[in-house]
Amino acid sequence: MKIIALILSIFTTFIVANSDIEILKKAKKANLLPIPNTKIELLKIINNQKNPSTDAKIELGKKLYFDPRVSKSNLISCNTCHNLALGGADGVSVATGDKWHPNPHHLNSPTVYNAVFANYQFWDGRSTTLEEQVKGPIQTQFEMAMHKDILPSKIKNIIGYKEEFKRAYGPNVKITFKLITDTIAIFERTLITPSRYDDFLNGDFKALTPKEKDGLNTFIDLGCTRCHKGIALGGFTQPFDTGKRYKYRNIGDFHGNKNHLVKTPTLRNIKETAPYFHNGMIWNLKDAIKEMGKIQLLLGISDKDAQKIETFFGSLSGRKPKIKYPILP
Amino acid sequence: MKIIALILSIFTTFIVANSDIEILKKAKKANLLPIPNTKIELLKIINNQKNPSTDAKIELGKKLYFDPRVSKSNLISCNTCHNLALGGADGVSVATGDKWHPNPHHLNSPTVYNAVFANYQFWDGRSTTLEEQVKGPIQTQFEMAMHKDILPSKIKNIIGYKEEFKRAYGPNVKITFKLITDTIAIFERTLITPSRYDDFLNGDFKALTPKEKDGLNTFIDLGCTRCHKGIALGGFTQPFDTGKRYKYRNIGDFHGNKNHLVKTPTLRNIKETAPYFHNGMIWNLKDAIKEMGKIQLLLGISDKDAQKIETFFGSLSGRKPKIKYPILP
Repeated sequence: MKIIALILSIFTTFIVANSDIEILKKAKKANLLPIPNTKIELLKIINNQKNPSTDAKIELGKKLYFDPRVSKSNLISCNTCHNLALGGADGVSVATGDKWHPNPHHLNSPTVYNAVFANYQFWDGRSTTLEEQVKGPIQTQFEMAMHKDILPSKIKNIIGYKEEFKRAYGPNVKITFKLITDTIAIFERTLITPSRYDDFLNGDFKALTPKEKDGLNTFIDLGCTRCHKGIALGGFTQPFDTGKRYKYRNIGDFHGNKNHLVKTPTLRNIKETAPYFHNGMIWNLKDAIKEMGKIQLLLGISDKDAQKIETFFGSLSGRKPKIKYPILP
Repeated sequence: MKIIALILSIFTTFIVANSDIEILKKAKKANLLPIPNTKIELLKIINNQKNPSTDAKIELGKKLYFDPRVSKSNLISCNTCHNLALGGADGVSVATGDKWHPNPHHLNSPTVYNAVFANYQFWDGRSTTLEEQVKGPIQTQFEMAMHKDILPSKIKNIIGYKEEFKRAYGPNVKITFKLITDTIAIFERTLITPSRYDDFLNGDFKALTPKEKDGLNTFIDLGCTRCHKGIALGGFTQPFDTGKRYKYRNIGDFHGNKNHLVKTPTLRNIKETAPYFHNGMIWNLKDAIKEMGKIQLLLGISDKDAQKIETFFGSLSGRKPKIKYPILP
């Protein structure tokens, strides 16, 4: 009996491994890419040569990221809408900013985690780097409402910051708006969350459960990877609801950039970043999957398939960087 | 020459040590008490026997403290107004809450650090424990605006929290409003910041600079310790501006409790918690010291003495607890 069990187990292992290899091949063919599991490969991707990173800059960037004094009111920090405790987002439909103003286009805050892997930033994809992105919300009236000429003098007036900028950039540093936002971007570039999905793509076949593998398979087969691909599982711009119309398209006036392109959100940590879609109108992940199928793939995704995909999405919840809450200068 | 230098040095050491002992005696006589430097003595003070602490409860309390979902809007956490990165306060004159409502009495957020050592909580001293205090802001319309009957069901609906409450309180735990607020209080009881001042009071005479010792001396001599005493250097209730009137007494309508008593704020970390006074109208620490002298001690404190006291206050900036920013369930 024991021998039969052993043979069976070897046989099963072979079968599973074989299908694992098939899924892996399929995933690579669909342009699904893991977060690299070697530091050097990772750094090649997350580092911006025009804005190179150091430990001192990362630490300073973290402080600025968490500092509500970067806003006009002294009450809103980057972390308010992109809360690292809440999947890198805020968990509300509409981003809420200075003086409690909701985003006038009814736009939802996207997660900052893994944003570094996206080719485009903002829902209309108007920035291609985090360095560019950071400049936006700080100045926007209904977000942080800070004037770009006032921020540097405000920061310079906080003695501790002056010292930290010197430590990060040398004694002759000139604290400019660009340097402040670049430093925040350097911190944001570290906010990546490798997951079991990456472990699988990197060759650890046991990292996903059979059901998650099945879900990944379905995800690819249905064509979700046409947009949700690359390391970010998104981050490109695509035409949106050009076939069937998005159920909540009239909530808010956002319909993409001038070419009607919309940034595809990352699916990483998707279980932690409800509500979904650019206007944050769908709270249930299965509903979001089915709506996407309908409007982007012109497909009626069955409950069963939506469940499979949702199960796969569970594997995208990544390991978050450990962050020591800063003491601000 | 060397021998003379040596004798002089011994002599100086003796003199200094002698005056150190004098200051220490004087401080003790003025009821200035250090944060105990042994864990057992400290725990005796910060532990509430009716709400005993465990590591699991502290960790859960930390999560609730940082969780904006504890508020009605999902946008305001305890940490918004009592920001552990900003001296445990918010650095603005008037506390700003739900829908951007300023505190209608123009009240300033006091620091949460070392609040456990205060005999009274709130500016009018209406609570005597942190457990009681926590219940206030969560429910207040212009703060977190959360209904006490809704919060428990909201928390129960977050699966991860259910698990964490079980871990902290056992499998049959009933998540009530009181249990949630008690758990937050347990975390707050850990927010203490021992400083060089404590080291000095605990016998390390080198912990303070000569100028800081001189400032401490002045602080006691002028009578500041009539109200700023005990471990908290405050936290009692006192009549306020009964002699001369506080310069900004008409900003806001707060004039103490029904007996016109006002809670004396702690002086710990005072250099990090501007603006000062209950209505947050004074930004400069020396101005605050002089105003206090005028209205509470009926004394004109000279610039020189105010400077000395401010220098002493520098030693009250404490060592903050290291806090890992939580990943919320």
